[in-house]
Amino acid sequence: MTSLRAERDDPAASAPHPRLIIDLAAIRRNYARLKELSAPAAVAAVVKADAYGLGAGRIGPALAAEGCGAFFVATAAEGTSLRRALKGVKADIYIFNGYWPEDAALLREANLIPVVNDMWQLEALRAGAPWPFALHVDTGINRLGAPAEAVLEQAQAGAFENMDLRLVMSHLACADEPGHSLNDAQRDSFAAITTALPGVPASLANSAGVMLGAPWRFDVTRPGIAIYGGAPVLGEAHPFEPVVRIEAPVLQLRRLKPGDSVGYGATFETDEPRLAAVVGLGYADGLFRAAQSGGYGRFANHRLPIMGRVSMDLVTLDATGAEGDIHPGDMVTFMGEDIEALAAASGTISYELLVRLGARFERIYQGG
Amino acid sequence: MTSLRAERDDPAASAPHPRLIIDLAAIRRNYARLKELSAPAAVAAVVKADAYGLGAGRIGPALAAEGCGAFFVATAAEGTSLRRALKGVKADIYIFNGYWPEDAALLREANLIPVVNDMWQLEALRAGAPWPFALHVDTGINRLGAPAEAVLEQAQAGAFENMDLRLVMSHLACADEPGHSLNDAQRDSFAAITTALPGVPASLANSAGVMLGAPWRFDVTRPGIAIYGGAPVLGEAHPFEPVVRIEAPVLQLRRLKPGDSVGYGATFETDEPRLAAVVGLGYADGLFRAAQSGGYGRFANHRLPIMGRVSMDLVTLDATGAEGDIHPGDMVTFMGEDIEALAAASGTISYELLVRLGARFERIYQGG
Repeated sequence: MTSLRAERDDPAASAPHPRLIIDLAAIRRNYARLKELSAPAAVAAVVKADAYGLGAGRIGPALAAEGCGAFFVATAAEGTSLRRALKGVKADIYIFNGYWPEDAALLREANLIPVVNDMWQLEALRAGAPWPFALHVDTGINRLGAPAEAVLEQAQAGAFENMDLRLVMSHLACADEPGHSLNDAQRDSFAAITTALPGVPASLANSAGVMLGAPWRFDVTRPGIAIYGGAPVLGEAHPFEPVVRIEAPVLQLRRLKPGDSVGYGATFETDEPRLAAVVGLGYADGLFRAAQSGGYGRFANHRLPIMGRVSMDLVTLDATGAEGDIHPGDMVTFMGEDIEALAAASGTISYELLVRLGARFERIYQGG
Repeated sequence: MTSLRAERDDPAASAPHPRLIIDLAAIRRNYARLKELSAPAAVAAVVKADAYGLGAGRIGPALAAEGCGAFFVATAAEGTSLRRALKGVKADIYIFNGYWPEDAALLREANLIPVVNDMWQLEALRAGAPWPFALHVDTGINRLGAPAEAVLEQAQAGAFENMDLRLVMSHLACADEPGHSLNDAQRDSFAAITTALPGVPASLANSAGVMLGAPWRFDVTRPGIAIYGGAPVLGEAHPFEPVVRIEAPVLQLRRLKPGDSVGYGATFETDEPRLAAVVGLGYADGLFRAAQSGGYGRFANHRLPIMGRVSMDLVTLDATGAEGDIHPGDMVTFMGEDIEALAAASGTISYELLVRLGARFERIYQGG
């Protein structure tokens, strides 16, 4: 099979290895679109889980340069890292996971705003030195959030007047199903709270919530996935650009004879001669093992379907259509414009693909 | 719901956060068992993908202390990191992804042994300065590996006599299905090659291959998953201990009324009063989104099933049975002895759970 190896252009360069190419300019354009769609509401950026796996340390400053002044992360540790990355930039950083008195020093040091999720947290805040906070009210997702009735009662009694309440928020359970009855119910429940808290900025909409329309946008929207180029509503057209693409090297080309099986469990068997490309990308890198049915990579104008099981470090693609064009060392691309197709083949959503991108990539940021 | 928050033992400690506890002593015991099972064959350790996500920098030295003298990684970059972690320890480090002339300087610098996977790589090695290498022969998995016939022909012609061939190896496709006909076929094909290469150590068996029996063990076995406490053969008893457990904090307890739904898409609806524990662990941390059906955590002697969809940073568990015992800030455990059950609920294998463990954990190594 010596003939399947072509001369490489620059043999002195390092061996071909998987790369993750993250387009900061596309991220900025997606954020700018969200500002247009959300106006007159402001747009805070959700950059938890290391900006959905893409690197909050690079994406935070890019969004700040585009005018973003508020960020949401999950934990105080994530907030501290983001504060460091934002350097001198003035920005509010909110911590979704609640107010924990143990974190008080950390919050002060990095100037972080906890999102209070429960009544005991509110009491703990009242008992300590005054500190800015957001209040998360549960209006039906039954995940995190203080009970709507208890918050409404306190608001109507003026119990927040001496507190530094910066934002009241809730979270939609079914925003990606525009016809779901919970969307109206949650909006109405949230609107009642905001009415009882005049002058406090209000936030309800995630990316899909922005698309639901003006009644869900209130004062501040909090998109995440749309910034990163995922579909807010599965199967519906949207104006956001792909921001991330994988490039992984062909390690070997193999000719398969009829009857040959490929990979673990010999689950794939060919009935005709094929050219197989063994690519250095596996489930350790975030290509889901489940992607074996329907997943594909691209090379030039060829689409190369996955054959057999995805391994930890390797995947085998059907490169029959690319024979003559493709050689060991060439790079096959994944994700990019195919992100939703890859998520569907993997039995999940684009969010999970993004946060699972592995540590073995060379990460290349473009357009910063 | 103030009553659901108990006083914490040490309010000055940092807020509760997810931890990954990795038991180096258990890893050493698993390796020792593999040595007993493999004898008289030696046991090399597969520590690619950062030792299946658990940290090659800590696990490599622990295995070396247990007598391991040979390691396999996927890429030259992984090999370089491992060499650094092993410090002065004498050990062979093999690079699965092949010999790429571009890596020659890297290989020399870190004293790494490439695993040649293709005939052009063999020619490239012959053309350069002599360098030790392993030869990977494909005997039926059709993934990586040089064609068996071509290698046999060269071996019979004495073409390796002036080369520094340290190991000849192949890889089993169906070792975890003990009755599969490919197991015998691959062993026989590999045995023919080894006969033509007298004096060259031979390696065929991964963890499941070790369990297949003596005829598959040759001179060196190459277990991976068994070292990390996963089952070599699904559903079969094995002598390996769990080595990793997740601890994640209860962020909130919520009382659910009949008719309440939980989480995104409102896919879970309760028909009776329940206590929900919202836990700070999500698919960004490696709890598969697919684990919603059948996944569970443990608290004391209670098993807490997942309710509704797993979110990026949160999962909701049914804590009804633990009411009174469980409080916000308490830690729920996942994985450990339940690793295969969690993998099954996630629609995958323990290998993929391990390599997907996220970056947000505090990693605690015990027994080092």
